[in-house]
Amino acid sequence: MSSRPLTGLRIVECASFVAGPSGCLALGQLGADVIKVVPLGGPADQYRWPLAPEGESLYWAALNRGKRSLAVDLRSHAGKELVTELITTDGPDAGLLVDNVAGSRWLSYEELSARRPDLVHLHVQGHPDGRPAVDYTVNADVGIPTITGGADARGPVNHVLPAWDLLTGMTAATGLLAALREREKTGRGSYLELALADVATSGVANLGWLAEAEQRGGPRPRHGNHLYGSFGVDFTTRDDAHVMVVALTPGHWRGLCTATGTSEVFAALEQALDADLARESDRYRLRETITAILRPWFAERDLAEVADRLETGGVLWSRYREMDEVVAAHDRSETPSVLTRVNEPGIGRTVAARPALRSGGSYGEASAAPRHGEHTHQVLAEVLGLADHQIGKLHQDGVIDADPR
Amino acid sequence: MSSRPLTGLRIVECASFVAGPSGCLALGQLGADVIKVVPLGGPADQYRWPLAPEGESLYWAALNRGKRSLAVDLRSHAGKELVTELITTDGPDAGLLVDNVAGSRWLSYEELSARRPDLVHLHVQGHPDGRPAVDYTVNADVGIPTITGGADARGPVNHVLPAWDLLTGMTAATGLLAALREREKTGRGSYLELALADVATSGVANLGWLAEAEQRGGPRPRHGNHLYGSFGVDFTTRDDAHVMVVALTPGHWRGLCTATGTSEVFAALEQALDADLARESDRYRLRETITAILRPWFAERDLAEVADRLETGGVLWSRYREMDEVVAAHDRSETPSVLTRVNEPGIGRTVAARPALRSGGSYGEASAAPRHGEHTHQVLAEVLGLADHQIGKLHQDGVIDADPR
Repeated sequence: MSSRPLTGLRIVECASFVAGPSGCLALGQLGADVIKVVPLGGPADQYRWPLAPEGESLYWAALNRGKRSLAVDLRSHAGKELVTELITTDGPDAGLLVDNVAGSRWLSYEELSARRPDLVHLHVQGHPDGRPAVDYTVNADVGIPTITGGADARGPVNHVLPAWDLLTGMTAATGLLAALREREKTGRGSYLELALADVATSGVANLGWLAEAEQRGGPRPRHGNHLYGSFGVDFTTRDDAHVMVVALTPGHWRGLCTATGTSEVFAALEQALDADLARESDRYRLRETITAILRPWFAERDLAEVADRLETGGVLWSRYREMDEVVAAHDRSETPSVLTRVNEPGIGRTVAARPALRSGGSYGEASAAPRHGEHTHQVLAEVLGLADHQIGKLHQDGVIDADPR
Repeated sequence: MSSRPLTGLRIVECASFVAGPSGCLALGQLGADVIKVVPLGGPADQYRWPLAPEGESLYWAALNRGKRSLAVDLRSHAGKELVTELITTDGPDAGLLVDNVAGSRWLSYEELSARRPDLVHLHVQGHPDGRPAVDYTVNADVGIPTITGGADARGPVNHVLPAWDLLTGMTAATGLLAALREREKTGRGSYLELALADVATSGVANLGWLAEAEQRGGPRPRHGNHLYGSFGVDFTTRDDAHVMVVALTPGHWRGLCTATGTSEVFAALEQALDADLARESDRYRLRETITAILRPWFAERDLAEVADRLETGGVLWSRYREMDEVVAAHDRSETPSVLTRVNEPGIGRTVAARPALRSGGSYGEASAAPRHGEHTHQVLAEVLGLADHQIGKLHQDGVIDADPR
């Protein structure tokens, strides 16, 4: 695969917040031309945290890298007509729309497919019935927060990562490409709907967790950082570093015992407790005992020695890092990584991610985010073939914003 | 899009645990024929928790629904040759491989593409340099656990959802379809690599979190269930239900104030503190105060009344449910949902997820998982054109397991 296999494809994005934009970011990183339609006043999430000191949104810039910005008055008839033309314009590589706009008649598949029958329209929503939802509400809805954190936790513990948003975005990207392939074979377009709540519900179901909860007649127990059904937990070193150590397979377990010199202790324990610690279920059942036996080994050693011994022993582990350390480690590293730096308008030189998918051993590049309306003129001229005076008129009439802030 | 647009496509899966199998599950739900190659002794994760009372893995069944199982002795030359033929067999809709096998020469792109130059091979790995990693170690690596949980949390708080695994799976699905589209246009195959660690690093970078951490020179503060940079937190009702309430937009905020009858209180607070609570950053800055003012309203009401008032007011909220309640709610519901029930061999009638992507308003179906080697005979006959006596010989020689357990 070339690093940009979707080059030539044109996708119109009418979406805000994380899900839709992250899916279109992925398609753009694969080469697609993503035209992001934003209202004249700016998108709803344009100042979402985290912010740069000057007030620009680091979040918005990161999720919209490499897209083209078309700023249009979406309340005006002329503005709606422009966007409709953009979405339904001819061409085998056009006619692709991702939106998360609720209840907008003019942006409905019905209206749009009347103009272009083979349109592929993917609509991202909160609940499948159209009710709004966000990552933090659907996560509560599917039961994750009540099994997160320690047994001593009072009430639910929310995750901070908008995991369902990111997964919804990538599911949308997969769905769009599947529908496009079908259109290329049959000529048929399609209307796809994807609800954040359904991604979350199927996500926990696909791990077997819903089936288990039904059998238990309740949630599984909470146990902090222990890995459910196997052995994995955090330890603290003498110099106060935290490390996560995992033993999923018999090989991992042997490596951990060897590295920590505990093979005999655990052999004795297996005898005494009639257990076979090569089996996940026994490691899980005895997790507290195993942890108690291992804890001193970590507490008596500094991270450097712990790291050396665990690496030598082939143990599956990692140090808990802060995010600034992740960036610092990238800056120190000589080998190319998924991180790079881009010059972000209004923000400056900032760390940015390249596509995680590597082709032929190398990473693709990362781009800056567009300024508001940066590509309005370019897109109207190039895609809709409007002449400068027509674009100028639209600007005068306040239908578009063609001057980058 | 038909509910199975990828029908006819044949993908060979040589992968275990969550990432690879979840990506192939998604492609299978879109219609692809996913042939899962498993070693004679069974895959490494075949007994991973959660387990059914009889010992079958609910996790494994859920992640492998609708796939065909081919059980082969992967250490024998004959077995490797069979799988190689299966992967490299002719046909425009074949020649697609997803694997997460580390350091296996015979399963390398080099060896396989020598047999089929236009092969599309997607290799899932832990770290980009090939070192092993799992969700729980990469999550520690990118800094999420140190910003999860309350300010009082001692040490890191792991998430329980293998979010990076699921996102890696769906990223793999997107990458495979992008590479396939390129092959269909140019005839070129490709070798794609996708590291769990890179998906996690780019995931936090794409939210602007790494850029922020660098600017702060450290991690952002932990604050429990508060939504970062806006207003969202959990409340407890008089009857001890927990609800998550979110006000991302000015509209959400107005709705929340109206529903709880606090508009005047907050107007006075804005005056007194020179704040504009229509602005996210002010809601975030004053989150503790806002929460303290709202808490009694929830504490004085039962869930039924809270739900009624919040719904009427158009507030963005959800109750925290346990997973068994999610299943019970599905069973009570009359409208089709993303959940359904399937008869699972060795497990019985169990709850299962249908594809979250809806086409033309309806959900696709869910299938049972294959039994070990259930399709060995069928696949060898149909795909490789082997005669019964040849398959029988392979069975006698212990190269394949063709008898479903």
